[in-house]
Amino acid sequence: MDLQSRTILVTGGGGFLGSHLCETLLESGARVKIIDNFTSGRASNLAGMLNRLELIDGSIVDECIVEEASRGVDTVVHAAFPMAIRQRSLETSAITDATAGLFNLLKEAVKNRSIFIYISSIAVYGEQKYNPIDEKHPLEPVLLYGAVKLSGEHFCFAMARSHGLKTVVLRVADIYGPKNTRINLPVQFLLDALNGRPLKIFGSGRQSRTYTYIDDYLKAVCAALNKPAAVGQVFNISSGKAVSVYDLAMLVKEITSSKAVVTFEKGEADERQLIINNSLSRQVLKLGQPVSLEEGLSATWDWLRNNPHFYKI
Amino acid sequence: MDLQSRTILVTGGGGFLGSHLCETLLESGARVKIIDNFTSGRASNLAGMLNRLELIDGSIVDECIVEEASRGVDTVVHAAFPMAIRQRSLETSAITDATAGLFNLLKEAVKNRSIFIYISSIAVYGEQKYNPIDEKHPLEPVLLYGAVKLSGEHFCFAMARSHGLKTVVLRVADIYGPKNTRINLPVQFLLDALNGRPLKIFGSGRQSRTYTYIDDYLKAVCAALNKPAAVGQVFNISSGKAVSVYDLAMLVKEITSSKAVVTFEKGEADERQLIINNSLSRQVLKLGQPVSLEEGLSATWDWLRNNPHFYKI
Repeated sequence: MDLQSRTILVTGGGGFLGSHLCETLLESGARVKIIDNFTSGRASNLAGMLNRLELIDGSIVDECIVEEASRGVDTVVHAAFPMAIRQRSLETSAITDATAGLFNLLKEAVKNRSIFIYISSIAVYGEQKYNPIDEKHPLEPVLLYGAVKLSGEHFCFAMARSHGLKTVVLRVADIYGPKNTRINLPVQFLLDALNGRPLKIFGSGRQSRTYTYIDDYLKAVCAALNKPAAVGQVFNISSGKAVSVYDLAMLVKEITSSKAVVTFEKGEADERQLIINNSLSRQVLKLGQPVSLEEGLSATWDWLRNNPHFYKI
Repeated sequence: MDLQSRTILVTGGGGFLGSHLCETLLESGARVKIIDNFTSGRASNLAGMLNRLELIDGSIVDECIVEEASRGVDTVVHAAFPMAIRQRSLETSAITDATAGLFNLLKEAVKNRSIFIYISSIAVYGEQKYNPIDEKHPLEPVLLYGAVKLSGEHFCFAMARSHGLKTVVLRVADIYGPKNTRINLPVQFLLDALNGRPLKIFGSGRQSRTYTYIDDYLKAVCAALNKPAAVGQVFNISSGKAVSVYDLAMLVKEITSSKAVVTFEKGEADERQLIINNSLSRQVLKLGQPVSLEEGLSATWDWLRNNPHFYKI
């Protein structure tokens, strides 16, 4: 993809999604600006890129910084999000920071007529009413995380309807891959295999998730910011194939040739079956075949073995 | 209705909706606490009640004040809302204040196991996709006001799903009546008639709204906080009957015996047909016959003639 004429602001550019995206955008020839306050993002994620991009080390909660960061930008990818909310904190300040940050960015995007790519989450759906979950599924988030992401979608579209903002919403499934800041289950199991620890399953193991490799996310974002047909739409971004937690554990054991045992643990378990339909995004964004779980886990495993200290910092 | 055993916190208790509600709740025997920062609410709205209720003069943005205000409370009616958002301000602080305030209240309500009545708005619907608009209508707010109200609904229900909060959401139509802080069209026309000014219609005059008298709102809130069947549900609160702006002007002229002319003006007009279905609330909340527009306008007119300086303060 050729993005040579584009200037793209990536919020949360030091994070898992953000730093991978910066790499992809730079390779496509785009001019890249990052804003990150490095509360969960890491400068080390940007190693090798810092001389090729413009880094604004600050918070999107600050209107002046956002104004500065937005100057000359034609596209915003808003990937920043307070990790505290993700971790189920009920701190009011985390909620207001997410809201203020988004809103500051939206106002600048309206002013600059930028395309605004909002990174939402499948957490907006809550309990599955049917499977696979498409974009028309009821929006009944269980977690505050999902409610905040959903609020953001409404802010984007209200600004589209009232102020002509061009926006695309991407509801991303559970993304995994190298440099994953949040230790979700694929990473947890790979780490356990690496360290010879048991792979612990909470609940029945039959709960399922549509784990999606980082490369599929990157392809989707690049397509979303480059296709006029995407504007004004909401897309699920997922591999399209769900796996049960038990099968995931087995696959990790196979890929890593680990002899670690799989144990079933008592404790709070989220037994949802989250099978995320990707038909609309594949069709409109013209995405190719998603990365298989085998390939994705293998690539993440290779990276993890070469970076065993990433999670010990 | 007997509310003798109840202790009810009304946020925005100095406002139009809030102050009327306090009066009704006190008459029903409830113990009433108010929190208001009086940016748009008025202490004078509480005249005659101040010795019968507990007033917390402060902002819901302050967690300590909210904790204090929530002590001993079994029911919260959250009617406070930044007037700035209503007036289409794009101030980030207004959005974050609304978010922080709601969230502070929700956390306390969870802690105290209070019933939480969230005053939402029909602005969550946006452009009508069909009429009359029931609670299943698509949620596509045009105004930021509607998006913020809708976000609040999602926060309430996420706290219900994840933390067991008992919540009821009331999506109120355009309410009018004595002490209306916001000069909406019924009040504007009555004021014009009072002052012998032309009644100005922007747009075709065929746009319609479901104006609803304050008493219907009060009945609905009292029912919502007293009926277990209401918990977890969303209700439109409306008179159920829409009127065109032109017909409204004619009715005001008739009721006030005004000889003021009706003029058609150029300018931004909101031509939506907002006919708000009230079937669900009438059924579940067992509301009686709504107040007719004739009765409601007459009562507001009587009040306005006795309080001609209310809008000149």
